[in-house]
Parts: sequence; C-alpha cells; structure tokens
Amino acid sequence: MSRILSRVGISLEAMSQEIEIGLGKKGRLAYSLDDVAIVPSRRTRDPEDVSTSWQVDAYEFDVPVIGAPMDSVTSPATAIAMGRLGALGVLDLEGLWTRYEDPEPLLAEIADLPADQATERIQQIYAEPVKPELITERLHEIRDAGVTVAGALSPQRTQQFYSTVLEAGVDLFVIRGTVVSAEHVSQDHEPLNLKKFIYDLDVPVIVGGAANYTAALHLMRTGAAGVLVGFGGGAVAATRKTIGVHAPMATAIADVAEARRDYMDESGGRYVQVIADGGMGDSGSFVKALAMGADAVMLGAPLARATEAPGHGKHWGAEARHQTLPRGYRTDVGTVGALKQILFGPSHQADGQVNYIGALRRAMASTGYVDVKNFQRCNVVVTPYGR
Amino acid sequence: MSRILSRVGISLEAMSQEIEIGLGKKGRLAYSLDDVAIVPSRRTRDPEDVSTSWQVDAYEFDVPVIGAPMDSVTSPATAIAMGRLGALGVLDLEGLWTRYEDPEPLLAEIADLPADQATERIQQIYAEPVKPELITERLHEIRDAGVTVAGALSPQRTQQFYSTVLEAGVDLFVIRGTVVSAEHVSQDHEPLNLKKFIYDLDVPVIVGGAANYTAALHLMRTGAAGVLVGFGGGAVAATRKTIGVHAPMATAIADVAEARRDYMDESGGRYVQVIADGGMGDSGSFVKALAMGADAVMLGAPLARATEAPGHGKHWGAEARHQTLPRGYRTDVGTVGALKQILFGPSHQADGQVNYIGALRRAMASTGYVDVKNFQRCNVVVTPYGR
Amino acid sequence: MSRILSRVGISLEAMSQEIEIGLGKKGRLAYSLDDVAIVPSRRTRDPEDVSTSWQVDAYEFDVPVIGAPMDSVTSPATAIAMGRLGALGVLDLEGLWTRYEDPEPLLAEIADLPADQATERIQQIYAEPVKPELITERLHEIRDAGVTVAGALSPQRTQQFYSTVLEAGVDLFVIRGTVVSAEHVSQDHEPLNLKKFIYDLDVPVIVGGAANYTAALHLMRTGAAGVLVGFGGGAVAATRKTIGVHAPMATAIADVAEARRDYMDESGGRYVQVIADGGMGDSGSFVKALAMGADAVMLGAPLARATEAPGHGKHWGAEARHQTLPRGYRTDVGTVGALKQILFGPSHQADGQVNYIGALRRAMASTGYVDVKNFQRCNVVVTPYGR
Amino acid sequence: MSRILSRVGISLEAMSQEIEIGLGKKGRLAYSLDDVAIVPSRRTRDPEDVSTSWQVDAYEFDVPVIGAPMDSVTSPATAIAMGRLGALGVLDLEGLWTRYEDPEPLLAEIADLPADQATERIQQIYAEPVKPELITERLHEIRDAGVTVAGALSPQRTQQFYSTVLEAGVDLFVIRGTVVSAEHVSQDHEPLNLKKFIYDLDVPVIVGGAANYTAALHLMRTGAAGVLVGFGGGAVAATRKTIGVHAPMATAIADVAEARRDYMDESGGRYVQVIADGGMGDSGSFVKALAMGADAVMLGAPLARATEAPGHGKHWGAEARHQTLPRGYRTDVGTVGALKQILFGPSHQADGQVNYIGALRRAMASTGYVDVKNFQRCNVVVTPYGR
Repeated sequence: MSRILSRVGISLEAMSQEIEIGLGKKGRLAYSLDDVAIVPSRRTRDPEDVSTSWQVDAYEFDVPVIGAPMDSVTSPATAIAMGRLGALGVLDLEGLWTRYEDPEPLLAEIADLPADQATERIQQIYAEPVKPELITERLHEIRDAGVTVAGALSPQRTQQFYSTVLEAGVDLFVIRGTVVSAEHVSQDHEPLNLKKFIYDLDVPVIVGGAANYTAALHLMRTGAAGVLVGFGGGAVAATRKTIGVHAPMATAIADVAEARRDYMDESGGRYVQVIADGGMGDSGSFVKALAMGADAVMLGAPLARATEAPGHGKHWGAEARHQTLPRGYRTDVGTVGALKQILFGPSHQADGQVNYIGALRRAMASTGYVDVKNFQRCNVVVTPYGR
Repeated sequence: MSRILSRVGISLEAMSQEIEIGLGKKGRLAYSLDDVAIVPSRRTRDPEDVSTSWQVDAYEFDVPVIGAPMDSVTSPATAIAMGRLGALGVLDLEGLWTRYEDPEPLLAEIADLPADQATERIQQIYAEPVKPELITERLHEIRDAGVTVAGALSPQRTQQFYSTVLEAGVDLFVIRGTVVSAEHVSQDHEPLNLKKFIYDLDVPVIVGGAANYTAALHLMRTGAAGVLVGFGGGAVAATRKTIGVHAPMATAIADVAEARRDYMDESGGRYVQVIADGGMGDSGSFVKALAMGADAVMLGAPLARATEAPGHGKHWGAEARHQTLPRGYRTDVGTVGALKQILFGPSHQADGQVNYIGALRRAMASTGYVDVKNFQRCNVVVTPYGR
Repeated sequence: MSRILSRVGISLEAMSQEIEIGLGKKGRLAYSLDDVAIVPSRRTRDPEDVSTSWQVDAYEFDVPVIGAPMDSVTSPATAIAMGRLGALGVLDLEGLWTRYEDPEPLLAEIADLPADQATERIQQIYAEPVKPELITERLHEIRDAGVTVAGALSPQRTQQFYSTVLEAGVDLFVIRGTVVSAEHVSQDHEPLNLKKFIYDLDVPVIVGGAANYTAALHLMRTGAAGVLVGFGGGAVAATRKTIGVHAPMATAIADVAEARRDYMDESGGRYVQVIADGGMGDSGSFVKALAMGADAVMLGAPLARATEAPGHGKHWGAEARHQTLPRGYRTDVGTVGALKQILFGPSHQADGQVNYIGALRRAMASTGYVDVKNFQRCNVVVTPYGR
Repeated sequence: MSRILSRVGISLEAMSQEIEIGLGKKGRLAYSLDDVAIVPSRRTRDPEDVSTSWQVDAYEFDVPVIGAPMDSVTSPATAIAMGRLGALGVLDLEGLWTRYEDPEPLLAEIADLPADQATERIQQIYAEPVKPELITERLHEIRDAGVTVAGALSPQRTQQFYSTVLEAGVDLFVIRGTVVSAEHVSQDHEPLNLKKFIYDLDVPVIVGGAANYTAALHLMRTGAAGVLVGFGGGAVAATRKTIGVHAPMATAIADVAEARRDYMDESGGRYVQVIADGGMGDSGSFVKALAMGADAVMLGAPLARATEAPGHGKHWGAEARHQTLPRGYRTDVGTVGALKQILFGPSHQADGQVNYIGALRRAMASTGYVDVKNFQRCNVVVTPYGR
C-alpha cells in the first residue's frame, strides 16, 4: 500500500516539475527571479540586527557582493574600491586592461559609440591580444592596495595564462565562461582538466557558469570553492535569441543549492559557495537570488551604474565581444551614484538601483532571519500571471 | 483504503498550492486581484436591495471604505468628509499634519515637484519631527465634527506617541507598517509587545500589514479588532523591485480570511475584521477584494483622485518617504470628481474610477447576495492568460 | 479498487478545473477565445462543400450570424440588409430608433463626439423615454421588407413593452441584459417571471447573457429557444474594471453547451440554441466560438465596421449608456467594407475583419467537418503563454 | 496493484496534456518555441567538432537549412546560391517566376508598395496564370548550376502541373499547403490521392504542413520522404486571427517526431524527415526547432533578409496572395547581410539574425552533442512566465 502511495507520490512530484511539450519530448518548468517574491510571515526584526557577511575559503567579506569580471564594471581601481567597501571585485584578465597599456581612451570610445555600431567596433578592439605582462601589472596594482585579489580567465585561455596569474599572485582564481562543464571534449587539443587543475592549484577556484544540478555537482567534484550560476551574465535575452539557451535563475540557483547539499554529504562536509551570476537588474532580484539559495551574488549592471564605473554608464560583457557570434549588447545602464551609495544608500528613487545592502537588510528583517545562510530558507511565492 | 485516498487527496491539494521552483525550493502559487474575476450564476437581485454596511467594534459605517492614512488622501478635512459620507478616514499621525503647523504649502509644493526630484524633496520634508501637540490638535478637529475618529501610527513610533493619541481621544487606533508581525525582535530596544499593548488599551486596534495565514493569525491573537492585509499599499511594484517582497492580494486576502475563521473557532467566537489595504486601483478590484473575503477595504489612490484630496491629484505613502530606502513613488493619479461622486456616482467614464459603491451594489446584485458578508462566498474564476 | 480509481479520477478531474486562490477560496480556471486555437488533423475538405446554415425554431438562416441589438450595428435598414444576406439582425427596442422619430442626426453627433466626452453625452441622449409607437413603426418597417423580424428588450423593460412588441409582430423575441437570471429577486416590484412569460408567449424567445452551466440550465428550463452566452458584449474589459465581473468566453461557451446537452436529456429532446454574444473582434474568434460549442454568434463590432452601419465607424452598447455606472465605451472600430463583403469577402487584409463566412468555411474545410454542428467537436489546443 | 498504478499513471500523463476548457470541451496545452529553452548540462565540446550535415533520400547537405518556396526568399538565383552554400532552395512553382517571364519589376513593385495597399496589389499580381513552360525554364536554370533541384506545388495544383515538373526534372518534389492531409474530400472533383501519387513518382516527395501526430502519421504512410511541420509559415499570427487555426511549433515538432518514431516501427525502418516550416524568426528558434526533434528547418524570413533575396527586404508567402481570404502580410524584414553571412557569420549584432549555423554549432557544443540527430535529445526547460 505504501508502495502505491510512494509511486503516486513520485509521479505527482515529477508532474510539478516536468511537462510534456509534445509527445515524447518533456521539459521542466523553470522560473525566473521575476516570477518569485518573498513573503514575510510571523516574525520581524530590526534591519540593524542582521548580518550580511560572507566567506569563501579564508576570505571574509562584509557583503555578499562580487563585482563581475567585465570591463564596464571592474577595473583595477574599482576592484580596490569594492574591496574597501567590504565586497570583492574580480578583474577580467582577458579584458581591455590586459590587452592595452592604457585602455581609458578605448573605454571612452566604446561609451560613445552609436548603438548600432557598438558591437562591430567592440569586436575590433578586443581582437588585440592579451599581454601576460599586463596581467601581472594589473594584479600587482590591486594587491598593493591591500584588498583581496581576484582575477578571471575563460576556460579557453586558462592553460595559456594561469601560470602568469599565479606568479603575479591572486587570492581567488575565477574561471568563467558562458557554459563551463567539468567534462569538455575536444578533437584537436587536450582540454583543460578542471579537476587536476584545481587540485594542483594552491588558490581557491570559483568556476562557472553552470545552471543545473548535474552540471554544478560535477563542477563541485573538481574541488572548486565556488560555482557561478547562470549563463550569459546580463545577456540572457540575447543568448536565448541567438543560440536558444536559457536557464531561468530562480530555478537554476535552487538546483545548484541542492547540488551543494548533496555534494556536502558525499564529500563529508565540503561546503561549496553558490554564486548567482548575472541578470540581477535591481536590488529586489539581488535579494531574491539569496533567498533562492545563493551565498553571494556577482553583480554586473548594478555596479556599472556607479560614478566610478569604467564603462561610463555603458555595460557589456564577454558575450558581446565574440568575434563571429556575439550574444550580448553594449547596453546603456546610466549612472546613478557612487559605488558606496549603490551598496549602502541612501536612495532617493524607488527603482531598486541604489542601496542593495539596505534592501537586503530590510528583506531579512521583514522575514526575521539573522544571516544570509538562514535567509535562504525564507518563504517565497510564485506569481504566475505577472505583476 | 480511505487512508490511501486521503493521502492522495492531501498530495493533490498540496500540488495545487505549491510548486517546486527548483530542487529543494518550493513556492506557493499566489494570485493578484487582476488574475480573478467574479462570475454571476443563477440568481440576480435589484441593486437597491443590497446592504453595503460594515461594522468594526461598536462603530457602524454605511460603506466598507476606509480612507488610507496617507497625506495625499486623508487630512482632517477629508477624514470628516469621509465620515459624513458613511466611510471612515484614518489620519496618518506621522504625516505632514503632525509635523507642520500649516502643511498646505508643502502639499502644494510636493504636488508641483518634477517626478525625478520628488522622492528626495519628500525625504527632506518628512525629516521634520512629529509634534505631539499637533497630534492632539488634529484629532480634536476631527472629533469636533462628530464623525468617528481614527489615527494611525507606525509600529516604530507607537510607544513614543500612543499616550498622546489616547489622551487626545480616538475611536479606532491603527498600527500600520509595511510588514507588521506579532513577534518583533530587537537587540537594542524593547520592541512593542502588541499583545500587551492591545490588551491594556481601551480602544479597538486595527493592525497590519500582514499577508498570510500565519502572520495574520498571530496578529489576531494579540486581540486586534481588525487586520490590514497587504504590504506596501499602492507601492506594490516598487516594494517588489527594491526588496523582493510581494504578496499578491487575492491570495493574501483569502488566506487571512481563513485565519479569521480558524481564530473565531479557537477564540470562541471573536470575529476579526479583514481589511484589504492597497493596490485597489479601480472599482473592479475593490469589489473583488470583498469577494475574496475582505470585510472592508482601505483605499488610497481612488480617494486621492477626489477634488477635495489634499494631494492635489498626486499620491504617495509612507514607503515613499523612507530616508534611506524609499519603496514607493509620488504618482500622478489625477482628479476625477468629488469624494461623494467617487463613492456614489454618477460616473461618466467606464474606467472604474467613479461610483465604487454603485459598482459594489451591481456586482452584489448580479450574484444575488444581500450583504457584504454573504458576497464573500461568491463564485470566482481565475483567468490565467490575461484580459 | 475501482472505487479508488474513480475517486482519484474525480480528484484529478477537479484539479484541472479548480485551483486554490488562497486558503478557503477556490476559483475555476477560465479561458478566453484568445487562449485557444483550432488544430486540423488528418482529414481536409473543399471549403465549397461545407454548410454554414443555422436554424432557430422555424427560422432558417444561411449563416450563423446575428447582428447585435446595438444602435451602432442594427438599424431597421441594416436589419433588413442582414436578413437579405442570410443572417439575422436584432433591433434594440430601447435604442435610439424607439426613443427618437429621427435618430440619424444623433447617430452622427455621437460619432463625432470627442472620446472623453462621449459617455456623458450618450447618457443624456439615452435619457429620452422609449416611445411604444416607434417600437411598432420600426418593427413594421422590417416586417415589410420580408425578412425575419427580431427585437430586443432588457429584462427591466420587458413587462412594460412586450405587449407593444407582440402586437407589432416579431418572429423572434430577444431579452438581453448584462446578466440575466431565471430567478431575479426584488423587494419593491414583482420581477419578470421568465418561465411564465415565455410559456405564455407565442413567439420563440432568446435570452441572456448567462455564462456558466447553472445559470444557462435555469434559463433553458424557462423554455427559451436560445441562450445568449457572455456578459457585457464587447465591453468585457470595462465590465471587469468597473464591477469585477468577467466570464472568459471559451469556457463560458463550452459550459453552456454542456448545459444544452444535459437539458436536452432532461427535457426529452429539446435543443436550445447556444449563441455566443460579444467579444468576437475578428473572424478567428468568430470561428473559435463555434468550435467551442456555439450554434450561432451575435456580432457587434465586426458588423459596426460596415459601410452601412448606423454607427458611422463608432461602436457602443447598452452598457455605455447606463445613467450612473457606465460599463462600456464608445469605441472607434472604423469602416472596412460593405456588410456583404464583411460576411462573404473578398478580403484584402489579413486582419480577420473581412470575410467571416469564408474564414468559417476554410476552418471547417481544414478540419474536415461538413456542418457547424459537427464542427463543434473539432480539436483545439490551449496555448498558455501567448502568441 | 500495478494496474492501479498504470491507470493512475495514465491519468496523470493525460493531465499534463489536456485541460478542461469548459465542461465537455477539452484542449491540449501546446507550446511555442518561445516558451522553451535549451539547458546545457555536464558535458561540453568544441563548436568545430560538431557535424551539421543532413540527408534526405540520396541527397546530402552540409547544413539542415531549406529555403522556403516563397517569392521573397527563393528565386532560381538564390536556389543556386543556397545549393552552393550546402543548403537546399525550393522554388515555388506557382510563384512569380512561373507566372511571369520577367518577374523582377513586379518584385520591385511589391517591395515598394505602401503597407496598407500591399495585399490587394499582390492579389492582382498573382491572378496571372501559371505557365507550364516557365516551370520548365526555371527548373532547368537551377539544374544547369549543378545543385540539387527542388520545386513546390500546392496540393490544389499538383495534378495540373506535376507532369510538367517531372519532365523538367526535379530531385525533390515538395507539396506544400497551409493544411495538407492524407485524406482530402471533395464533392466536385477527384482529389489528389497522395499515396498513389507518391507511390507512382520516381522522385522523393516532401509534403505538409501538418502539425500533429495523427495528421503527420497519415502523411508518412503515403510514402513521403519528409513532412513539413507547421501551418501558415511565417503568417502564424494572421492565420490565427483570420481562421482561428494555430499549432504552436514546439509541441507540433515534438508530436510529429513521435509519429516518425512510431512510423519507423510500423514500416520496418523507414525514416521520414521532419522539417520544421516557418515561424523561425531568429537563430535561437532555429536551434530550438532542431532540439524539439526536427531534422531540418525550412527558413523564410531569415533568408528573406539576405542581400541577394528577391524580396528586397520584404517578405510574403502564399497565404498573403489568396484571392478572397488572405492570411498573411507582406512584412518588412529588412536586409542584414549576404546569404553566406546569414548562414555562417560573422555576426556583428546579438539579435539572432546572422550566423545561424554558428549558433547551431555553439548550442550543440554547449550541450555536448556531435550531430543534429543526437542533439534532438537535448534537455529543455519550459519557461512559463516570459523571458
């Protein structure tokens, strides 16, 4: 009898997850952060009483915010500024700062390009080769400021440049691509063996994007300290339009958080950081990403809106510079205030672009949780039909 | 056998409520008033034959309408006007009328501010301290007009000002915040003990917002005469954008109505008023809020559109004046007619902005119900895909 | 064992129909015609080979089209024109033609009113009393042309004017209101007893709107020859906005069609015509209304677009002229061609506004059905997420 | 016991497919390509390592792309260009090229027509009869270039012109209509017996559109080498608006792919090509069509955007030229690059209009599949609420 129930139970479970798109093709229902909302319940708390701190390996941060390795967001200068504000900035080690001795004129040029010509000119500018000596120089600049040093390479370039990076010295090594798997297959070259690479490395590695349970679990098994969740950063819509790939973030984060739980069990207690990467356009989405199970959030557009941002109010990522198949745009995000104000307020508009940490504190206070880890358990609703 | 059925029954029940957003994270489906509609069935009635009266504690009202404690809606003058029309106006005791001897010039200034500068100037204007003597003066003005007197404080200020309020004399005491719980925790001060506070008070208390079964049940257990349902008043979209919190109203009202039923049982018959608060932009939504189980509705924008409204066609709430994290805008609602016409018609447009009570009467007549309490049982549909 | 299955079966059945909006409040999922689409399958047919004829009582029509009793659609002249084209025109016996000796100047004035003043002026124009002698005159005019004569009254006016109508002579009597029930209750007057009224009458009666199984079944039991399905004609959006009432048409038609089946059984074979009334803005919706189970469709806006239409390219219904609570607008539908062309083509645009019968023929041919009755069984899909 | 489970299982299965629109009318949930997205999992691959080749009968192609038989897409010249690029171009044998000796001036005229007059003028232009000698001439022109020759007729004209086509010589014969069934019924003429026709023919036949399991299975049983999936090509919205017919593509492709599996079993191994036809407006949709089970995709608008396209940046299909019931528009698709660039890049915009094959390679690489046939098994999600 109980077998009947469990069988029925399993079927019902599956139903809420998978639907038949057509005969013989099933698909899982997946939800974006816009589809969900946080619901307070019976206990509240003072916003001042909650902790927003976050830790990866030996590195502690006051706020669970990581500046994305994008030239419009993180320069050596803003990486330092983020570090001083209690966040972490990750420098793109294949961006303008390692291709050009002085990228400032190019950043200004990109910001001024007409929208319809931006992609083609960006493709040209990024055709310039990466220079190892500039990798060293930029990382030293950040190190000298006394903040945590983090740099990102794509999986394709990791073998070529990682020793330069290590010699220059980083505290956290980020391997970031649109889709990164633990098992890359290639016919004409020996692909990066992530597991061996990470095992041999002395510094903790954050790797991604991945966006489902299986892909994330395999990345965790490589020994990564953190996994980036998401494909295409802020270029979600373009990625879907160009190659049909999309992993709505609410579902993706929850899945990867579950992989973390299962991996913790199978590894005898290793806790891998789950880092939501991209598509967090306002503080409400930032808060909801943590509510879905993320330990920290990698922010692009929100920090590109800072007065200090190298993008001058424009924003673009690695997807936008692909030489033959760009999957992102240079977008106009505008400038809304200093980095410090974006993180800690005060805000003078109700559009969710300023005071991300104040928003997090208030959401945590409204639901009664004292730290981010516990806040991951907060109640949410799915609001199917808009608003 | 029956156990199988009930077990299966329970699972099915749960399914219609909860969905798996991702592995290990479930969320409940929640519906807005826009998602639902009323369906007449086999009996109709004359609109003149229905009763729209409403009662809380010893106070009776001809219509189930409460003017929201917002400076754009309820001034001493409009509170009196609402009272004379059979409704209830609640004065915000932390608004302009208790901060300034003569707020009229400031109301005019706010109405004239350019949209992009409004929030910052509003923050400045509301930085002026609340003056106890003005609380007294304003409440006396309303009392002298012979209508029911009601004033609202936020939970944060209740301990500071409640004795002033009681001495000035109110018939109904409203404690209203974005999220109010029966169990607030604070590290550096003794929070308001709602249960003790309400028990000690001689006047009936209406408290909220709450938006789910548990939170509302706990508020009911404090002895409150009424519970406000909703977060963020009319600032729903901004609250969701800034802190990720949202409780769609159709679901929230129905949940709190269920808490009322269960609390009535556990308390041996105490009936707590369920008051839908905010987001009712047209008379259709007002009617549907009652159909979902509300006993009365607190209206903001609809009454801010009155010729007499202190906001001069603009509208803003407490969320919009928060000093570091505003979660609402000053919106432009326009002016559509006198308060009396907005409530009782005649209407000369089919946009649901005029003749709220006429609309309620017609909806009740179309479904055959004679009073608001019975109308709560009317049939509704969920229209999933728009229109 | 079979009881388990049937119980489970019943629960599953219910699930696909009812969802829990909140604790203790359920609502049924309801679908609009926009939500559904027809899917051809394995057999096709020549469009010339299908029959589009329709019959109510002794009256046969070439096409299942009824001109709505709205002043912008049906005048004595267009009722005659519709009759000659094989359709049926129903004159509104409480419209301008029975209030004014010469309504033409008023029709022209209404057509020219600025949008924001239209409702108020329409309310004034329709404040003029209905004149029995004009009812007689208009019906005689239609009768003299040799086409089927049909006139409509509201339930409120039926007792006052029906004898005038009968003496003037009609073939079909239509009682049409926003919501019409078989059991209307009134405190200060004896309401129309539909069952007795219809029983005593010699002419067949078409009555509505109703929009669910129960309401329609009760109307069928009054002896009506046809039931109108829908509330608010083309004013669906305004009705929902003003009084919260809405019955999406795909679900409403299917429900009423089921009531027809059950009533046919309980009455020993009486077949009541199901007439979809309103909200059919294009030929695709017209076709889908029949596919959902309607025997004929009452068209408003589509026929108001005729060169001959009395509304001069504008369109409004009884809801728009209510003296205190208008629930519809005078809308601008434009003029697209002669009545004949709207019904039978040719069309020179792919917007579904011309060649309604050609569209029906093609849809029937694509699905292989030979007549409208069989076409009601065609396969449809629900397309949940737009397009 | 197992019977209980299977019975319950069947019910659950059905539930995820069919919903009750109203009492007694069920409809299946159907999904568009916009509703689904591809999700990478644990294995990735180099884009260079995947194969995009496709084969129908003895004809092999480098890329699974077919130029639609539409005058704005495929002329003799572009059919040749497509062939040389590894794709297949199908000439519409009832289009301008077989009605006029020199259609170029007419193509230019159509491109310049004002939008609101385009349909009527197109109807006039296509009223000119098809000339058999031009069929011969055009096919010879393509043959002489040494590429695979394919021409399309509508089912209505197949009997009249097929011998001309066969004598002229084609490699692939396409029978394409809005809805094509294996069992067409006519009262006044002997309809095309597809089964006998295809059996008698020496060349392989591709036939459609069909859009569900049953219709496709019956077409497969006629002996067709390929089945076109879809109704109305790019004119989906207009077809739905005019005649209410719509078959969302994700569901349609998956259904027809299942028919292919079942037919392969019943026929002892005959593999029928499933060709998604129409509605693929960007490379993401093209990729997703293959992911749903298509073997190749017939492209209209994407190739009409080529510099070489005969439509000069405008696009229209057979639906738009119907003499009495047009179900499509001449749309303005613009010009984005040479045919070669549209297929193979490089792209300088992230809008999915350029580099279709690059997009396919990347999607296959991201999911680890080596060829199109295996890629059909890739994981997808349904993203119910937009984005």
